[in-house]
Amino acid sequence: MLKYAHILSAFNRLDGHSIRTPLLESEAINQRLGGRILFKCEALQRTGSFKFRGAYNKLRLLADEGVSGVVAYSSGNHAQGVALAAQLLGMVAVIVMPADAPAIKINNTRRLGAEVVLYDRYTQAREEIGDRLATQRNLSLVKPYDDLDIIAGQGTVGLEIVQQLNILGLTPDQLIAPCGGGGLISGTAVAVHQSFAECQIFSAEPEHFDDTARSLARGTHQVNDAQARSICDAIVTPTPGQLTLPIMLEHLHAGLRATDQQVLQAMALCMQELKTIVEPGGCVSLAALLAGELDSANKITVVVLSGGNADNDMLQSAMTFQAN
Amino acid sequence: MLKYAHILSAFNRLDGHSIRTPLLESEAINQRLGGRILFKCEALQRTGSFKFRGAYNKLRLLADEGVSGVVAYSSGNHAQGVALAAQLLGMVAVIVMPADAPAIKINNTRRLGAEVVLYDRYTQAREEIGDRLATQRNLSLVKPYDDLDIIAGQGTVGLEIVQQLNILGLTPDQLIAPCGGGGLISGTAVAVHQSFAECQIFSAEPEHFDDTARSLARGTHQVNDAQARSICDAIVTPTPGQLTLPIMLEHLHAGLRATDQQVLQAMALCMQELKTIVEPGGCVSLAALLAGELDSANKITVVVLSGGNADNDMLQSAMTFQAN
Repeated sequence: MLKYAHILSAFNRLDGHSIRTPLLESEAINQRLGGRILFKCEALQRTGSFKFRGAYNKLRLLADEGVSGVVAYSSGNHAQGVALAAQLLGMVAVIVMPADAPAIKINNTRRLGAEVVLYDRYTQAREEIGDRLATQRNLSLVKPYDDLDIIAGQGTVGLEIVQQLNILGLTPDQLIAPCGGGGLISGTAVAVHQSFAECQIFSAEPEHFDDTARSLARGTHQVNDAQARSICDAIVTPTPGQLTLPIMLEHLHAGLRATDQQVLQAMALCMQELKTIVEPGGCVSLAALLAGELDSANKITVVVLSGGNADNDMLQSAMTFQAN
Repeated sequence: MLKYAHILSAFNRLDGHSIRTPLLESEAINQRLGGRILFKCEALQRTGSFKFRGAYNKLRLLADEGVSGVVAYSSGNHAQGVALAAQLLGMVAVIVMPADAPAIKINNTRRLGAEVVLYDRYTQAREEIGDRLATQRNLSLVKPYDDLDIIAGQGTVGLEIVQQLNILGLTPDQLIAPCGGGGLISGTAVAVHQSFAECQIFSAEPEHFDDTARSLARGTHQVNDAQARSICDAIVTPTPGQLTLPIMLEHLHAGLRATDQQVLQAMALCMQELKTIVEPGGCVSLAALLAGELDSANKITVVVLSGGNADNDMLQSAMTFQAN
């Protein structure tokens, strides 16, 4: 099980390498929701998402063990995180990515020096491709969330939130974070509960990909319909991780949901009020809040915005809501 | 003349009220320019620009003197800064704004509880309107840059840059900041030179509005052509301030320029690589760098991005460059 000490170690390992992303606040959003909303903005992290944290923590440990090359499968953000971490540490990186990932994510991964292997998200199993490459080319497999070192790295998001709330003298009532496999929210929950035991923590997922919400309700792994589709490409995982679900069952209050339409509206609000580009999967937390899935009136709510790697067309779609 | 102690006092006054905006960095931009570029991102400041800093510093001092209402003239960012500061301090605010200011700026100013009085930017003198309102309604005039308390407030941008560079262990070779009346760059230059005396500081201005560049070269106030137009609505001032030019003559190395086209390209790059919305006037610093006005190869360059209040159509224009 993940211990707070793992997150502290990751935090020290990341010091000077990751960005301590700001906790943003908007008068307009506060007024609209009648409470105080603090946004932890991981779109401003290196490579445009929190994934760099876990990747750097993991690769740093692998490098210490003498590993010189890694392989990862990823819809795009883990890919970029691993690619940059490998570049910084002088390691080889091979990344297995879905052919329909946003072009910005594929291009950025290549630009960071990684070799990209594309596959079909709906007919091929990325785990098998990753395992085969690991064996064939003697690379260490870096999983996106089912790895304690990865979860500990993502947990530094929660550790920074605690530090930033302490500076502001605030005690959070609740926290919402986007959830795919559960690495980010698991690590974050452990870090936040270390200091704020009463804070209620909620996962946010796209409609049709609410496996975590249902798994939390039932206490066992629930799986999404393989035919389901969502614009939230970063978090359309089939089921919670083996390591993350037990942590989430211990630390999470419940799971929230948002539609693609609500996600686009949340993206527009981020652009307009927070001046930040947030990608669909990174914004589902705010979308669930705007959708009324959780009451934030007269409360202090932390909303994690987990990434910002959206293609132009997606931004254009979001901007059609901005004038409203 | 502005003293470093003024900026330190402003910093203490702003503590807990302004956001310590992040210093962002992008691998892609560093690679492209061959040096290390650190972006001080004031688009993420409250009200979407650095102007809140000077406004809050000034209004806090006025409130201590018993003043209960203020009037300001502004193209939009000073307006929002004064409006929010007045709201936080329980003061009345009347703002004189050009009728062609971006709708986002006018709407935000009203939403912050200020009374907005519109005027024609090209036929009416905002100073006269402001002075008349001050007399008629017994309000204190809050100038946008020709006021030492305002300049000291904006100088906290420089103070934070110094702190952030110290944490990174970096010594800056040069700094570029957008320049309208000169409040931001004057305060920032004094703060930065206090710690980094060798840092070369450059103003950036839109083509046709290079009054500061020419004033620096000649040593006296130069004025722009009244017929000139630019998309950089935040910084199309006619000539440097009375208080700011002497400071700029002492601290600035030279003035840089960028075209509207270059500004749009810089906006696109900010969206793509920094995940932040920067308005035209806020981005002219990066635009001048991309335009080759200054060599940043193998150097450490700080670029101030001063605001992010761009309307949707402006973002759309910028995004046409993003695919390139």
